[in-house]
Amino acid sequence: MPPSIHATYRLKAETSNIMKRITLLIITIGALGGVVALTVRASRSAYQEGTPSYVTEIPEGYREWRFISVAHEEANLNSFASVLGNDIAIKAYREGQLPFPEGAIIAALHYKFVPSAENNKAFGRDQSFVAGAPTNIQFMIKDSKKYTATGGWGFGHFNNDGKKVDDAFMKTCFPCHQKIKERDLVFTRYAP
Amino acid sequence: MPPSIHATYRLKAETSNIMKRITLLIITIGALGGVVALTVRASRSAYQEGTPSYVTEIPEGYREWRFISVAHEEANLNSFASVLGNDIAIKAYREGQLPFPEGAIIAALHYKFVPSAENNKAFGRDQSFVAGAPTNIQFMIKDSKKYTATGGWGFGHFNNDGKKVDDAFMKTCFPCHQKIKERDLVFTRYAP
Repeated sequence: MPPSIHATYRLKAETSNIMKRITLLIITIGALGGVVALTVRASRSAYQEGTPSYVTEIPEGYREWRFISVAHEEANLNSFASVLGNDIAIKAYREGQLPFPEGAIIAALHYKFVPSAENNKAFGRDQSFVAGAPTNIQFMIKDSKKYTATGGWGFGHFNNDGKKVDDAFMKTCFPCHQKIKERDLVFTRYAP
Repeated sequence: MPPSIHATYRLKAETSNIMKRITLLIITIGALGGVVALTVRASRSAYQEGTPSYVTEIPEGYREWRFISVAHEEANLNSFASVLGNDIAIKAYREGQLPFPEGAIIAALHYKFVPSAENNKAFGRDQSFVAGAPTNIQFMIKDSKKYTATGGWGFGHFNNDGKKVDDAFMKTCFPCHQKIKERDLVFTRYAP
């Protein structure tokens, strides 16, 4: 093999080798890009479906809202709840609209469940329980885009000092509410 | 006595007699009038202080009113109450205005106090009570002129069928509410 041919062969072989490496690099970059793309997509999906966000601000004017119903929890909670709704929520309740429309907000105002000595005295027997000190307020805000991870509802819980509780606590809301999917995760029924 | 003088005398005497009778009639009419006036006054007074009148119509729009508080009565009542107020009542509550101003209306919406099987199932334990079927609505309407006999408050009680209960039942409201004169006969305190 004359050196020129050899050189040409070597050059061709090297060129081929470089081309192969470039191709490999392109494939690798492409593959990596794909992996990155997949990773981004996967993490966004994880955010939407697995990493919920919660309500961080108390909705304005909730104390002026109309009445939905009352509730009482015994045992460790020993609470009274008054459940109020903004105009969108009240309209949906009255018209039996399910799922609730965007913008619906439901507020549960919680108080201690306490016996009323003054009422019992007037009635002449122990039978009266009233709302004691306020304990917390919980909200459900319908925003399907913002709260995809929790069924389209943003959950919020604010203690009596106005501060929201930590996310570890908030994680317990959705799994429980999810048990009543047929009523769009809302426990409270409308009291006429 | 000449007949003319006699006649004149008789005429004078008769005139005097007629005048006396007219005077007596006027006095009698006046006296009767006075008696009638006294009777009317006395009966109105009796109406105002001894014969109360009650609320006969359900106030319009009460289901849109704002929330005051919740209550629960045990025993034979076994009820849940949601207490709502019209704008005048809510303003008075928030400003601590006592006595309540004219036009204030307080509504107590009563429901059966029932355990919630669906809530208990979701929570995993028996602890939840909710508003069951509506039972009655009670009202207190502040109108000092109309309801003088019952401390300036008109009491109303309407069963679930919308019919008001009889006056015999209604007579029991005021004696009990009168026990809390210091809060203008209103049991329910405002829940923040």
